Amino acid sequence: MPADLVDLQVDVSAVKYVERCLPPPISLAEASAVHTAASVLRKATKPLLIIGKGAAYARAEESLRKLVERCRLPFLPTPMGKGVIPDNHPCCVGAARSRALQFADVIVLFGARLNWILHFGLPPRYQPDVKFIQVDICAEELGNNVRPAVTLLGDIDAVTKQLLEEFEKTPWRYPSVSGWWKSLREKTDHNEAASKELASKTSLPMNYYTVFHHIREQLPRDCFVVSEGANTMDIGRTVLQNHLPRHRLDAGTFGTMGVGLGFAIAAAVVAKDRSPGQRVICVEGDSAFGFSGMEVETICRYGLPVVLLVVNNNGIYQGLDADAWKALAQSGDASTAVPPVCLLPNAHYEQVMMAFGGKGYFVETPEELQESLRQALADTAKPSLINIMIEPQATRKAQDFHWLTRSNL
Amino acid sequence: MPADLVDLQVDVSAVKYVERCLPPPISLAEASAVHTAASVLRKATKPLLIIGKGAAYARAEESLRKLVERCRLPFLPTPMGKGVIPDNHPCCVGAARSRALQFADVIVLFGARLNWILHFGLPPRYQPDVKFIQVDICAEELGNNVRPAVTLLGDIDAVTKQLLEEFEKTPWRYPSVSGWWKSLREKTDHNEAASKELASKTSLPMNYYTVFHHIREQLPRDCFVVSEGANTMDIGRTVLQNHLPRHRLDAGTFGTMGVGLGFAIAAAVVAKDRSPGQRVICVEGDSAFGFSGMEVETICRYGLPVVLLVVNNNGIYQGLDADAWKALAQSGDASTAVPPVCLLPNAHYEQVMMAFGGKGYFVETPEELQESLRQALADTAKPSLINIMIEPQATRKAQDFHWLTRSNL
Amino acid sequence: MPADLVDLQVDVSAVKYVERCLPPPISLAEASAVHTAASVLRKATKPLLIIGKGAAYARAEESLRKLVERCRLPFLPTPMGKGVIPDNHPCCVGAARSRALQFADVIVLFGARLNWILHFGLPPRYQPDVKFIQVDICAEELGNNVRPAVTLLGDIDAVTKQLLEEFEKTPWRYPSVSGWWKSLREKTDHNEAASKELASKTSLPMNYYTVFHHIREQLPRDCFVVSEGANTMDIGRTVLQNHLPRHRLDAGTFGTMGVGLGFAIAAAVVAKDRSPGQRVICVEGDSAFGFSGMEVETICRYGLPVVLLVVNNNGIYQGLDADAWKALAQSGDASTAVPPVCLLPNAHYEQVMMAFGGKGYFVETPEELQESLRQALADTAKPSLINIMIEPQATRKAQDFHWLTRSNL
Amino acid sequence: MPADLVDLQVDVSAVKYVERCLPPPISLAEASAVHTAASVLRKATKPLLIIGKGAAYARAEESLRKLVERCRLPFLPTPMGKGVIPDNHPCCVGAARSRALQFADVIVLFGARLNWILHFGLPPRYQPDVKFIQVDICAEELGNNVRPAVTLLGDIDAVTKQLLEEFEKTPWRYPSVSGWWKSLREKTDHNEAASKELASKTSLPMNYYTVFHHIREQLPRDCFVVSEGANTMDIGRTVLQNHLPRHRLDAGTFGTMGVGLGFAIAAAVVAKDRSPGQRVICVEGDSAFGFSGMEVETICRYGLPVVLLVVNNNGIYQGLDADAWKALAQSGDASTAVPPVCLLPNAHYEQVMMAFGGKGYFVETPEELQESLRQALADTAKPSLINIMIEPQATRKAQDFHWLTRSNL
Repeated sequence: MPADLVDLQVDVSAVKYVERCLPPPISLAEASAVHTAASVLRKATKPLLIIGKGAAYARAEESLRKLVERCRLPFLPTPMGKGVIPDNHPCCVGAARSRALQFADVIVLFGARLNWILHFGLPPRYQPDVKFIQVDICAEELGNNVRPAVTLLGDIDAVTKQLLEEFEKTPWRYPSVSGWWKSLREKTDHNEAASKELASKTSLPMNYYTVFHHIREQLPRDCFVVSEGANTMDIGRTVLQNHLPRHRLDAGTFGTMGVGLGFAIAAAVVAKDRSPGQRVICVEGDSAFGFSGMEVETICRYGLPVVLLVVNNNGIYQGLDADAWKALAQSGDASTAVPPVCLLPNAHYEQVMMAFGGKGYFVETPEELQESLRQALADTAKPSLINIMIEPQATRKAQDFHWLTRSNL
Repeated sequence: MPADLVDLQVDVSAVKYVERCLPPPISLAEASAVHTAASVLRKATKPLLIIGKGAAYARAEESLRKLVERCRLPFLPTPMGKGVIPDNHPCCVGAARSRALQFADVIVLFGARLNWILHFGLPPRYQPDVKFIQVDICAEELGNNVRPAVTLLGDIDAVTKQLLEEFEKTPWRYPSVSGWWKSLREKTDHNEAASKELASKTSLPMNYYTVFHHIREQLPRDCFVVSEGANTMDIGRTVLQNHLPRHRLDAGTFGTMGVGLGFAIAAAVVAKDRSPGQRVICVEGDSAFGFSGMEVETICRYGLPVVLLVVNNNGIYQGLDADAWKALAQSGDASTAVPPVCLLPNAHYEQVMMAFGGKGYFVETPEELQESLRQALADTAKPSLINIMIEPQATRKAQDFHWLTRSNL
Repeated sequence: MPADLVDLQVDVSAVKYVERCLPPPISLAEASAVHTAASVLRKATKPLLIIGKGAAYARAEESLRKLVERCRLPFLPTPMGKGVIPDNHPCCVGAARSRALQFADVIVLFGARLNWILHFGLPPRYQPDVKFIQVDICAEELGNNVRPAVTLLGDIDAVTKQLLEEFEKTPWRYPSVSGWWKSLREKTDHNEAASKELASKTSLPMNYYTVFHHIREQLPRDCFVVSEGANTMDIGRTVLQNHLPRHRLDAGTFGTMGVGLGFAIAAAVVAKDRSPGQRVICVEGDSAFGFSGMEVETICRYGLPVVLLVVNNNGIYQGLDADAWKALAQSGDASTAVPPVCLLPNAHYEQVMMAFGGKGYFVETPEELQESLRQALADTAKPSLINIMIEPQATRKAQDFHWLTRSNL
Repeated sequence: MPADLVDLQVDVSAVKYVERCLPPPISLAEASAVHTAASVLRKATKPLLIIGKGAAYARAEESLRKLVERCRLPFLPTPMGKGVIPDNHPCCVGAARSRALQFADVIVLFGARLNWILHFGLPPRYQPDVKFIQVDICAEELGNNVRPAVTLLGDIDAVTKQLLEEFEKTPWRYPSVSGWWKSLREKTDHNEAASKELASKTSLPMNYYTVFHHIREQLPRDCFVVSEGANTMDIGRTVLQNHLPRHRLDAGTFGTMGVGLGFAIAAAVVAKDRSPGQRVICVEGDSAFGFSGMEVETICRYGLPVVLLVVNNNGIYQGLDADAWKALAQSGDASTAVPPVCLLPNAHYEQVMMAFGGKGYFVETPEELQESLRQALADTAKPSLINIMIEPQATRKAQDFHWLTRSNL
C-alpha cells in the first residue's frame, strides 16, 4: 500500500460505506439423518463429543452446552475449540484425551476434522469399529479419512439444536455412573496428579509443568490466550484453561510458525476496543518468539494490552547433553559449539521489550514468575515480557505409548 | 493411459471393488427462511420460477412439479434445466422468456445462477426491484450479482419439499386468471405464431424455424438431445422440446465448443446400455461439427444409436452478401474469396459419416428432411448424419430490443 | 478473437507497421574452447556429428556441409535436423544410426539435445567413455545429462565457422578408409538391404517398407514433409529423404499428437505463397489422422497444395490376432469385439477428403499406390488424400536389441 | 528440513562429494559487432560507460579497468556494480550521475539493464538520440526498452577483452580536456561541495550527510557494505565508497525489504572464513531493521563480525510536523497520535543487540558517532549495533528536477 495512501486524511462524513455481504445462510441436516444420529448415540456405551473450531465459528456454545449437560456426555475440545464449553466443565475430559479417543465407541465431531491433530481417525489411536457422527458445514469434509456412521450437513449450531429437539421428544441421558465415565475420571485424576507432581517440583531450572501451573493460577478468566511453539504450545494447551469461546489462537491445523505476535496484536486491538481491562496473554517458545519478535515495537508504539511470556529453554529440542549445555551457557560464546537447533543460551528477550519502553522480567524461580506475572497483570499502562528460564532438557511427563510422543497428553 | 494397460485382460473374478463414496449428504434450509420465502411468494403479483440444471442434478423433478401444479406458478427452464418439468407443461412460459424475466416481481431460482445466461439478474432485463429467492446447494452462490430477498441454502429437492409443506399448512394458489398469466399467455401465443409462420415458409433454402419444426415433429419422447452451435443451439433450444430431466446436453454456462460429439457418444453409451430403442439426437451447427467431427469414426466403430443433424448455413454468421455467397457456392473454389468466418459452401458432411459405414443424407427441402429423419430413426442398426442445407443469411425472427440479439427468444 | 475483428476490413494504406525486433544477436564460442574441441576431434578414432534442429534454426547448412566435407566426417541428423545436409549425402549415416551412436568415441552435437530421442547420451546406447562436444546457443543445456568434454556456447553457424577456421589453420581430414567408416558403411548397406527386401515384398496387404519405398520414389525434391504417428513417423523418418533444411515437421521432442494437419496447413500457406508448384506431403498414421482429420475442410476451402497420405493399419498397435482381425473386417461390425486400441477396420478416410471436394484414393497394392501418388502430385488444383491399406500386424524389421524397440532403426 | 537431519552427525570421511557442475561456459560477441561498437564509441563526443552487477558477476574488474584507463572514459557504477572499479577512481562520475545520464551521446552498458533504476533508458533522463551499446550475457535483454545501436552478446569479461583488442589494433583515447569531462567534473565538484556542506552542519539532530560522512571516514577498505532502507540506502550509496568488486549488497533491482540482516549474516560467514579482520558494515534504516531485527540473535550466537548501523529517523518518511514529532517523542506514548508510517520515537535498537550479548551504542552527536564507530571496529570479539539518531524530517539536499526525487544524486 503506497505511503501516500496510508497517510491520506479524509473527511469522515465523506466516507461511503458499501452494502455488507449477506449474513451467512444457515442450513439444517436432513431430519432422518438427525434421527439416526440420535439413535446411534443412544446406543453408545462409550460416547464422546469432540468440539472443534467449526463449533466456535458457528457460535454454537449455548446449544452444545445444553446438549452436553442434558445428556451428560463427555466432551473433548480441539486446540481452538477450547472455551466453546469452559475447560473446567465437569464433562470435559481434556485431561484424559488419549484414553477418550482410544476407547470411545461413538464419537460425534462438531466442526472438528479428522486430520493429523485427531490422528486421522484411525487405529491404533481409535477403536477399529468406532462409529463417527460428523456434524459439519462442508459437504466435502464428510467421509474424509473414515467412513462415518452418520453425517449431518449443516450449520453446527442449527444441527445441534436439531439434536436437542430429538432428545427433547424422547429424553435420554447417558448414565453418569457408567464404567466409561469411571475410566475417564480415573485417567483424568491420574493425569492431573502427574501434572501436579511435575508442577510442584522445586528443582531449578523450572520445568514446563511448574511454569504453566503458575501461569494458570493468575490467568484472567476473560483473557485471550495466544500460543505458539512446540512443547510450549502443546503442554500449555493441556494446562492453561479457556473459559470463553473464540479466546484461544494458536498455530492452527498446519502448525504455522511466526504468527503468534501478529495474532496477539490483532487480539489486543479488539480487546482494547472492547473492554479497558481485557488482556492478551501470549505464550511463546523462545524459538517461536524469534520468528517475529520485532513486533514488540508495534506493541509498545500503540500501548497494546499484551503480556508476552517467553518459555525459554534456549531453543533446545533434543540431543544436547545437559553438561555440554551448562558449559556453553557459562562460556557465553556459542560460536563454535552450539548445534544448529539451539539458540543463544540465556538470551535476554525481556530487554527487547525494554528497548521499546515496555516492562521486562527475567525469571528463574516460581516466586519470581509469580511476582512478575502479578506486576505485569496489574500494570495496564505498559506491555510486558517475562523471559522464563526453564530446564533445557525439560520434556513432558512420560508417555504411555511411543506414538504419543508428539501428542499433547 | 499406456496402451499395454488399455489392452490388459484380467480375470473378472479377481477384480476388487473399493467401497464407493458416501451418497451426497442432504441439507435443508432454515425453517424461518422457508417461511419467509413462502410469504414473499404469496405476496407476489407476478411470480416466476426458474428451474436450473442444479434442480436436475438434485433430481427434484417430482417435488418441483408438485409445487408448480399446486400453486399454479409460471416456470422457465434454463437450457440444461429443460425437462425437469416437461417443456409442454401448461405452466411453462419458455416461449415468453424475455417478458417473463422482464416483468416478474418475485423470481425463485432453483439451482439456476444469475450469470450471463440469466443476464446477471440486472435491469433492463429485469425489474429494478424484482425480489429474488435463491434456492441453491452452494452458499457462496447466494447473493451473487444481486442482493436476494431470501436465500434457501440446501439440497434443492429437500428445500422444495420444505416449501411444499409450507403451502400444505397454509394452502395457496396463484390465481390463474391474473393479468400476469394473461400477459404471459398472450406473449407465448404471439411468439409461437411468429415461429409457426417462419416454420411454414416454403421458400428454399429452408430457415432455422422450418428445420426445427420438422425435427420437433419426429423427436422421440425419450431421446437425449445434444446441441452445440450458435444460432443452431439457441433457436433449437426454444423449439425442440424435452420431456425428461437430464436428457439435454449443450455447450453449458461457458459456451464451450467442440463438446457435442463427445457428449453424444457418452449419452449413447448410456442409452444403449439402458434401453435398446433409445436414441441420441445430436443437433450441430456446421461450424460446431467441425471441432470434433472425426468422432463419427468412434460412433460407427461401436454402432452407437446417434442421429447427427448438421444444420448447415456454410458457417455464415454475418457480413456475406447473399449474391456473393451464391457465386462462391457455384464456383466451387473458396480459396480466394471466402471470408475467414465462413466455411466451405456445400460441404458434404454426410459423406464423412458414410466414410465410416454410417448413413448419410444431404437434404435441401422439408420433404427430404422429413423422409431422411424417418429413415434415420427407423434404422436402429446404423448411425446417421443428415446434412441440412439452410439459408446462409438465415437469422432468427425480429427481436423486440437490440440487447436481445444474443438471447434465445 | 471476436468475429467482428476477424471480419474487419481496413484500408491497406492505413496500416502502420511497428518497428521489428532486432535480429537475433550472434555470439561466438571462446577461442580456447574451440581449439580444444578441434583437438579432441582430431584425436577421435570413431567421430560422429549429430545435427539437430538447432542447426536448422541457426541456418547453419552451408557451414556444416563444409565441415562435413572438408573433414569427411560421418553425420547423423535428428528428426527435424534432417535436410540441413541432404539425407543422401555420402557422409550421412542415418541408416546405421544405432551403430553410429553406440560405438562413436567422440560425438559433436550441433543444436541437438541429449533427451530421450538421443537416449539421454547414456550407455548402453553409447560407449561409457564417449566424449561429447556440445555446440548450443543455450548455456543451460550444456552439461545436461552427461558431462561433456568440451562445450561451445554460441550461435551454431558462427561456432561451426570458428571450427572451420581451426581446420583451415591446421588442416585435418578424417581418413575415409578407417575401420569406423567401414563398419558404418557395412551396417548402412546391411540395413538398406533389409529395408529393400521388406520393401520388395509382394504379399498383400503391403507392409510399411513397401509403402514408404514407393512414396520415396515420387517425393518431390523440394516438398515439405509433415509426419505424425508411431510406426508411421518412425519408419517414415528412416526411409523418406529430406534434401532441404527446415522442410520436415513432425511430432517433435515431446511426441505431441494432433499437430500434423495444422503443420501441413501452415507449411502449405508458406509453400503456396513462395512457389506455385511446391507441395506439402503429409504422412499420417490412421490414429494420428483421427486427432484433427476435420482440418481437411480448411485444406479444401483454401485449395492448399497438400497431399495427405494415411498409412492405415486400422489403428492396430499390437495384440490383435490376424484371423480375428480379418473376421472383424469382414463382419463390418466392430461394436462388440474391437479392442480399445484399434480403429474401425477399413475406414474410408479418402471419402472425408472427397466430402469437401478434394480427391480421394483407396489403395491396396503397390501399383495403386504408385498411380494414385502420380495423379495426386500431377493435379495442382486440388488437394488429395490417399488411404493406404497395410498389414494390421505390420511391424518393423527385426531389431538387434530389445531396447531398440522404440528406436527408429 | 527436519530437526533430526539438521542435528545428524556423520563421519567426515564417509561424505561423498558429487561432481560439481561445469564452470559456466564463456561466449564472445561477433567480431563485426565488436568492431562496430568500437567505431561508435570512437565517434562519441560525450561517452559514458555504465558498469552493472553483471560485470561484477562476470569478474570483469581487470578488463574493465584497463578499458576505462586506456580510453580514459567516464564511468558510472550501478548500486551493486559499485567496486568493480573503485568508487574513488578519477574516471568515476558517480557524483554527477544525473548529468552523465542526461547528456551522454553514447552509453555502453556492461551487465547493466535499462530498468527503473536506470530510468528505462528514456527521455527526459536521457538524450532522445543517445546511442546505447549493450554488453550482456542474456540475449533476451538486448533491445529491452530501447533500440540499441549495437548489441554485444557474450560473457562481459570476454567481450570487454574483445573491445580492448580493437583499441589495441587501432589505439584511441578519449580526450581528457573535452567539454564533456569539464562539465562532468564541474558537476562532481559542485555536488561534492553540496554534500560536504550538508555533512559539516553542526546542528542536532544530525542529518544523513553528516552521518554518512563520518561513517565513510572510518569505513575499512576491504569491508562488505550491506545496505537497506529508503533514504538510508539511496544517500548511503552516493557517499559510502566501495573499493572492491562484489563487496556491496543491497535491496537490489526490486527493492526487496527485509533482506539486509540475512545478507549481513551470509557475508559475515564468508568474511570470517576468509580473513580474521574483515568486517561487514550493515547500514539500515530503522524501518528496514524492523523487518528482521531479531536476526541479531543469530549474529551474537555465532559471534559474527558485523557492525550494524541503524540510521534512525523514527520511521518518519513525510508528513509529520517537527513540533508534533518533538511532542510525541517527549510524551513517550505513541499510542494515540503516531501516524501509520512512523515508528516509535527514540526506540533503543541498540538494546536489542545488548539483549543478546553484543555491544550497543546510542549516539546523537558526530563525536559520539565517531567514538562508537571506532570502538565497534576495534572490538573484533563482539558484534555491535550503533543506533544513530537523526533529524526526523532529514531529507536529501535539494534536487534539480522534480523527477529526481527518488534518484540517488
